[in-house]
Amino acid sequence: MDLQSFFKMSYGLYIVSAQADGQRSGCVVNTLSQVTAEPPKLSVSVSKNNVTTDLIRKAGYFTGVAMDQEADMIYIGRFGFRSGRDMDKFEGIDYAEDQQGMPYPTKHAVSRYSCKVVEEIDLGTHVMFIGEVLEAETLSDKEPMTYAYYHAVKKGKTPKNAPSYKPV
Amino acid sequence: MDLQSFFKMSYGLYIVSAQADGQRSGCVVNTLSQVTAEPPKLSVSVSKNNVTTDLIRKAGYFTGVAMDQEADMIYIGRFGFRSGRDMDKFEGIDYAEDQQGMPYPTKHAVSRYSCKVVEEIDLGTHVMFIGEVLEAETLSDKEPMTYAYYHAVKKGKTPKNAPSYKPV
Repeated sequence: MDLQSFFKMSYGLYIVSAQADGQRSGCVVNTLSQVTAEPPKLSVSVSKNNVTTDLIRKAGYFTGVAMDQEADMIYIGRFGFRSGRDMDKFEGIDYAEDQQGMPYPTKHAVSRYSCKVVEEIDLGTHVMFIGEVLEAETLSDKEPMTYAYYHAVKKGKTPKNAPSYKPV
Repeated sequence: MDLQSFFKMSYGLYIVSAQADGQRSGCVVNTLSQVTAEPPKLSVSVSKNNVTTDLIRKAGYFTGVAMDQEADMIYIGRFGFRSGRDMDKFEGIDYAEDQQGMPYPTKHAVSRYSCKVVEEIDLGTHVMFIGEVLEAETLSDKEPMTYAYYHAVKKGKTPKNAPSYKPV
């Protein structure tokens, strides 16, 4: 199988987050996708290793934000390469909470989607949540960051829990 | 709900196709996404109105190709705006068949992913298929077409069966 061929697929770059039992966290994903329009539903695939995955399951809600191109590697790394087991990722950064009490980062966020989990699918290493969108908002007019831009311009790496991680 | 905010999400543009009971068809989607790496699995959301959806269900397989930026609106329209009920979409164009016998267009294809359906999720208006990737191949070194490029440069419209269709 030609693993390089998977790099021909296009994605955005997002932070998904949740809060439950007094704990909050978020992680970087490229897998947020609108899958129906009426009503609007999003799907997201997240690693079973991520604290965020447990929090989404406990909360029954998640919030996704699309990141802008200006997000730097330090900002992306906070959500993408550090673990919610070791830190509160929202400590010291700009964030807000949606009507369900889910926190989401507001800096470098071009849009925000607050979802109620309506289905959970076991994908093996990952879990897919289907979320019905309760709130959707444009937060800035900056250019959304694509996964291609992240790799080409930011020289970003793929974290090991990403579904597009290749052990080569 | 701010429906414009959904345009901040980034996607590629793909043709997914299948063949069963002597019928073959394909449709344009922006919803193909890699959701696990080990083993590689893709998800795709397709409208229940599409002939392709029935064929994927019958076949138990589908093939997705990522389109290049040079695909023109006539080519995209063949798969995106016409119905497999009225025509054989593969008639008269360059195509190949994968090892499962699924046809896929080879013109304007930068990569190809042949999948076995391992799960089907009812999303209401759409069906999501989870496919385990059996074959993956790079077909050209041209730039993949993104959904943003399709809208901005090709002035492409969103077909009514797309999950990102907005009736506004």
